[in-house]
Amino acid sequence: MSSSAAAIQPETTLSERHIRILDAAEEVFARAGFHAATMQDVAAAAGMSPGNLYRYFSSKNAIIAGMAERDRTTIAADFAALCPSRGALLDQLEEIGRKHLIRQPRDKAVIALQIWAEAARNEEMARMCAGIEETLIGGLIAALAEAKRNGELPADLDEQRFLLAISMMADGFYCRRAIEPDFDAVAGGEVLFRSMRALARAMPLPAAAAPATETQS
Amino acid sequence: MSSSAAAIQPETTLSERHIRILDAAEEVFARAGFHAATMQDVAAAAGMSPGNLYRYFSSKNAIIAGMAERDRTTIAADFAALCPSRGALLDQLEEIGRKHLIRQPRDKAVIALQIWAEAARNEEMARMCAGIEETLIGGLIAALAEAKRNGELPADLDEQRFLLAISMMADGFYCRRAIEPDFDAVAGGEVLFRSMRALARAMPLPAAAAPATETQS
Repeated sequence: MSSSAAAIQPETTLSERHIRILDAAEEVFARAGFHAATMQDVAAAAGMSPGNLYRYFSSKNAIIAGMAERDRTTIAADFAALCPSRGALLDQLEEIGRKHLIRQPRDKAVIALQIWAEAARNEEMARMCAGIEETLIGGLIAALAEAKRNGELPADLDEQRFLLAISMMADGFYCRRAIEPDFDAVAGGEVLFRSMRALARAMPLPAAAAPATETQS
Repeated sequence: MSSSAAAIQPETTLSERHIRILDAAEEVFARAGFHAATMQDVAAAAGMSPGNLYRYFSSKNAIIAGMAERDRTTIAADFAALCPSRGALLDQLEEIGRKHLIRQPRDKAVIALQIWAEAARNEEMARMCAGIEETLIGGLIAALAEAKRNGELPADLDEQRFLLAISMMADGFYCRRAIEPDFDAVAGGEVLFRSMRALARAMPLPAAAAPATETQS
């Protein structure tokens, strides 16, 4: 793990071969776990020799970085397409949530948990996760500011705290989807979306909230 | 991993020696990761021989089960102590949250993520996590029902969905605390507690909510 500093830079443009390897690796990591899986397993699943695999990805960490980069590109494109002309922002966010949290196969959540567990002990991987987070949050903050300007959301919404609340809930949704075999992703998603809509109206900036928080009970 | 079916039953009464081993194992698992850590590492950290360690815990899975059981016992005791005479339920829940999410060292979150990542691929461990969840949810549902009866919470609160929302957010909080070295646990906790209070007033049972959800935007 400690020798991964150089290897963790993701390859930027994805060839068809890169995509095939990433798909194979997702399957292998979900089944065997990131830690137990080997480059040999990934090569076999991708139908190539280990030597050939190493020409595309130098390590498991590089593969993980490639997966994360691919996901980031997709999600960033969805956030970049957020636009008032497409309807209410919260409706658009819900649709993105349905796509990435519910319609994706459960394996994606299993892999995310493997990556997070590694990131908790691996600075390089933690930095990579933070980079993804930053890209996403940046696009969302801009869209939320616009929705405040056009009156869809309350002008005093604390968008930083609102986003943190929603992101934590989405991460928790992902954890449950990965861990609980019987987890009802659709029902869980409804709770997430209802909470998002409720919190958008109930998370004002601290200055506006100050008088109310004195008597919390 | 597949040979763990019999080994994952947690030892029930904890001797001083059990506690010392669990403390040592928490440190080792947080540093090396559950998967990479060995029973030898745990024995060394606990200051005993591997042979002696095996007299207390038959496997890493048994240690994890012991850790989880210890946490469950503590949290279940805190939930069992919830009582209207101690003040508002949401204040009491916030205090339990501060204790278990914020005041616990970050290592606890790192280990939780290791366990969850394993549970995502290991049925026995998933069942263990589900058992813990059930204990906690059971106690909370009873406390929420009482708070609805005594008027602290709205009579039409959908406590199942409310709890799912809050639990997902707490899990996501744990993820972030484990992964982001700069995560501000106190600020994150405030967002969690504010969200809990807001959602307690904004998560009515579906029957009551039906007319409102037709025009979501």
